[in-house]
Amino acid sequence: MSTRQLSVRRDPGYAGLTSAVGTLPSAWYFDPAHYARELERIWQRHWIYACRAADIGTPRSFRTLSVGQQSILLVRGEDGVARAFHNTCRHRGGALCREHAGRFPPSGIVCPYHAWRYSLRGELLQTSSKVHGDGFEVRDYPLYSLPVTEWNGFLFTALTATPPPFSASFDLPLGRLDDWRLADLAVGHRLEKTIRCNWKVFWENYNECLHCPGVHPRLAQLVPIFGRALLERRDDPAWQDHAEDDDPRYGGGLRAGAESWSMTGKPAGVPFPGISAADRKAGHIYMTSVPSVFIVAHVDYVRVVRLLPLGPEETAMSIEFLFLPETLADQRHDIMNAVEFTDIVMSEDAAICELNQRGLHALAHASGVLMPEEYAIRQFQDWVRAELARP
Amino acid sequence: MSTRQLSVRRDPGYAGLTSAVGTLPSAWYFDPAHYARELERIWQRHWIYACRAADIGTPRSFRTLSVGQQSILLVRGEDGVARAFHNTCRHRGGALCREHAGRFPPSGIVCPYHAWRYSLRGELLQTSSKVHGDGFEVRDYPLYSLPVTEWNGFLFTALTATPPPFSASFDLPLGRLDDWRLADLAVGHRLEKTIRCNWKVFWENYNECLHCPGVHPRLAQLVPIFGRALLERRDDPAWQDHAEDDDPRYGGGLRAGAESWSMTGKPAGVPFPGISAADRKAGHIYMTSVPSVFIVAHVDYVRVVRLLPLGPEETAMSIEFLFLPETLADQRHDIMNAVEFTDIVMSEDAAICELNQRGLHALAHASGVLMPEEYAIRQFQDWVRAELARP
Amino acid sequence: MSTRQLSVRRDPGYAGLTSAVGTLPSAWYFDPAHYARELERIWQRHWIYACRAADIGTPRSFRTLSVGQQSILLVRGEDGVARAFHNTCRHRGGALCREHAGRFPPSGIVCPYHAWRYSLRGELLQTSSKVHGDGFEVRDYPLYSLPVTEWNGFLFTALTATPPPFSASFDLPLGRLDDWRLADLAVGHRLEKTIRCNWKVFWENYNECLHCPGVHPRLAQLVPIFGRALLERRDDPAWQDHAEDDDPRYGGGLRAGAESWSMTGKPAGVPFPGISAADRKAGHIYMTSVPSVFIVAHVDYVRVVRLLPLGPEETAMSIEFLFLPETLADQRHDIMNAVEFTDIVMSEDAAICELNQRGLHALAHASGVLMPEEYAIRQFQDWVRAELARP
Repeated sequence: MSTRQLSVRRDPGYAGLTSAVGTLPSAWYFDPAHYARELERIWQRHWIYACRAADIGTPRSFRTLSVGQQSILLVRGEDGVARAFHNTCRHRGGALCREHAGRFPPSGIVCPYHAWRYSLRGELLQTSSKVHGDGFEVRDYPLYSLPVTEWNGFLFTALTATPPPFSASFDLPLGRLDDWRLADLAVGHRLEKTIRCNWKVFWENYNECLHCPGVHPRLAQLVPIFGRALLERRDDPAWQDHAEDDDPRYGGGLRAGAESWSMTGKPAGVPFPGISAADRKAGHIYMTSVPSVFIVAHVDYVRVVRLLPLGPEETAMSIEFLFLPETLADQRHDIMNAVEFTDIVMSEDAAICELNQRGLHALAHASGVLMPEEYAIRQFQDWVRAELARP
Repeated sequence: MSTRQLSVRRDPGYAGLTSAVGTLPSAWYFDPAHYARELERIWQRHWIYACRAADIGTPRSFRTLSVGQQSILLVRGEDGVARAFHNTCRHRGGALCREHAGRFPPSGIVCPYHAWRYSLRGELLQTSSKVHGDGFEVRDYPLYSLPVTEWNGFLFTALTATPPPFSASFDLPLGRLDDWRLADLAVGHRLEKTIRCNWKVFWENYNECLHCPGVHPRLAQLVPIFGRALLERRDDPAWQDHAEDDDPRYGGGLRAGAESWSMTGKPAGVPFPGISAADRKAGHIYMTSVPSVFIVAHVDYVRVVRLLPLGPEETAMSIEFLFLPETLADQRHDIMNAVEFTDIVMSEDAAICELNQRGLHALAHASGVLMPEEYAIRQFQDWVRAELARP
Repeated sequence: MSTRQLSVRRDPGYAGLTSAVGTLPSAWYFDPAHYARELERIWQRHWIYACRAADIGTPRSFRTLSVGQQSILLVRGEDGVARAFHNTCRHRGGALCREHAGRFPPSGIVCPYHAWRYSLRGELLQTSSKVHGDGFEVRDYPLYSLPVTEWNGFLFTALTATPPPFSASFDLPLGRLDDWRLADLAVGHRLEKTIRCNWKVFWENYNECLHCPGVHPRLAQLVPIFGRALLERRDDPAWQDHAEDDDPRYGGGLRAGAESWSMTGKPAGVPFPGISAADRKAGHIYMTSVPSVFIVAHVDYVRVVRLLPLGPEETAMSIEFLFLPETLADQRHDIMNAVEFTDIVMSEDAAICELNQRGLHALAHASGVLMPEEYAIRQFQDWVRAELARP
């Protein structure tokens, strides 16, 4: 029936799945009760990427972040330490900050409702009452504190007092991108999109390139192995036929003549001086921290893609483009050369994710099936199952 | 107390209800859980009118249709047979078609996400994977098939593999409108409306003419028996007083001088040549297939009114106006003469249905009461109760 | 830690709470199931302020009012008596009135759907049927009647046949504002706002002035004791230090030179002739009927603030400004002088209530704490708890 020849070999070391396995149940992608469970068991238990450390670079500067219905306040102390709190006063639960970003006065964090005043460490310094009731001790009412990790210029927080070790929250060693001097980079551009899909639909899209030839024609040209619907050399069952072949069709990396993800293939900014030849040749290194972020290091910029859940069928995506300060200082560098390329690719992904979301509602489609190339989706789905099962 | 004289007789053969009976519970018209149950027990078990056969007249042309959250794909095969499927790929549940209508390429139905390719019969022809996992057989992944009936130029489908016999889905014998050569007619105009009411509110409105004098002043003039708040001669308890009276006030049919439902009362198109004198005199013949459609045959056109549920308190209505090809070919025929009349009547119905919906929320109104003239609502409500009770 | 000196005294007669007590659970402010319970146990059991008697001043004039999903019809009879009904026909539950206000014809209340006709007393006078089914008695189908109290030119209704005694529904004796001749006043202006907060958030805001210095800078100047974050003289734990001090900072009332709540502090209308010197000096007398209304009597006008719940996190507020007829008859009186002042204050309250609502969602904030000055919130919350506990 098929008009295309299927491989009959699976070479040793083949990366793909060797048997057909089912996906997550379709209802997990739209059922509101299941969504609430995922908020509780996944989003409220893991490290969440909040913003760049420089976004609250000066003492007393703050940002707020929404994760589902939770609003988190991140603030830099006078001591230079970044801290996070629920954006809520201990008195009667008023939100402390209306703005997305700003800077507190030297007096500290003052609730706009009744002027309870907190230090930047979250200690309650003062209420507005003339006397305190018996049993009320100021020290008992600090802001609800949340953990913060500052790593390479990125700030992560968590909606739990007991998040997993931060070092375990990425799929690669934390030092993998040290050559990029991530802490020193600056945000040159930001893109924001709301995607009408469940957050897992996006991550599944991220975890395979079977869709690349059809969905991303431009990217499929820039990254020839993507054009073959593969992520890596060993995703091809007959990979040993080209085991030594350096052609990017087999080995990965960018097409001949291209150096970065951009409209022209040329770098959009000053290349990072310290990166290895191998990394330069790869053209992109991915580091991932589910559920909220992945980082892609290119030869001239770093792309940071953050996801936040807005509802069972709605997800907020933000993309930051990080460059060397010298790139941003010199107007001859056209960073839009990079931004526009990503905008095209991510818009293609957003559109196809929305189509995936719509089809998941079909009554007959209790679940789908994973193909061999979708081994990373398998890992993601196993992780989701395990997280949901944890008490 | 009453200022109007009530009949004290009920002649033999009187069509009306002889005792006061209660309506369905008010909560059935707005409770989301009950709505879900009606989707499951009624909308997902019965034949649903999808579109005209000519809408997918050529091989490979398709339409999509939404019933609640379900999206259905109808496509004409190369063999001329119309088929229906869930608009969902078997792989990871992506929607196959974004568009409401279109035509597939000769290669078949290709999922826009990962390029799984299906024949127009729904067979999976090809995946995009280089190898298949053990246990994966292409033949095991056809599209989710749904039944189709092509009848007189109308395409019906169902969200179940076991719909009732199609012949049982209309209230009249399937051949009742054969004189209209329904299969040969063409759509001259379409109206679409979203009505903020439960779907049952619309059908109840359809099933009585007590509201006609007040709600439809123009229609009440065109159809004098409607102006008397009756549907049929025997709806009058004293019908025998005029048992032989040919006046349309008693016998039904259009007012003297009128031939069709139109602004002028004149036909808007070429009259159907083959219809009987009795049918011509009647002016309108109704054929009904709950829950999704009724067909009204006039002397010069056929009106097809389709309902689809959008939510507990929202319903989509579409109206098609079918004419003889010669009517549409000749611009001297002013089909808007018919369209505008229906638009007035259906807009009046939509507005009053929305008012009905609003009043149903009253705490004190657990249910209402049916009046003698509402015998057809009683049948409809009994049908709803029976369908909900079927396991 | 605190930089401000706390009082260590609580003088005899101090009004404040003497110990720290918890607030209502945060979930009560947004959980849809809890909201439904409050509609049932509070909003559907208590007197609700509907409109001014003069709004249906002439026989046959009507108003409709929405409380949650319930629509109430208020109509003045030919006998001059105001009555209330569910805005729903007994037949099939159609809403009787589409309009917010209007006047019925002499024939009575005619349902727009099937023309059932009711007297202004709610008796069913006539159906539209030609005969009635066995067991149908017109007298069995009056409109669903609701209680009405006409008090001082205000109309109250209730969604229960057994509301509490009306005299118990205000916090002050019903005659407290008799000097204002409330029944004779006329509405000179109306403001409407939708506030995205639970209805209780608004009432809690109403019940304390801890927020006044920060939220209402202008009001804090006009009412000096509010500027001290207090409502009354005895809210200060050291009130005896100024027990005899007539300064409005201690005794309440308006700042020197001000006579009313207005932009200039001057009266915006003709002062009420009959009010006592003490009331004139107070500048505002509050009378409150939870859950729906409070009335504030000023020297030259009366402000009526009504709340109605629209959803768990949405509340409708309407404000009426009542003046002596001679004020409204004479264009030299600039009533906007009063309206604008209230508009500023109420807009400040609306904004801070919305901020309170947002912060209540914080996972960690199961509940808050009441401060000594919030004794009236304590009373309100105790009342809410008691109402919810009543079977």
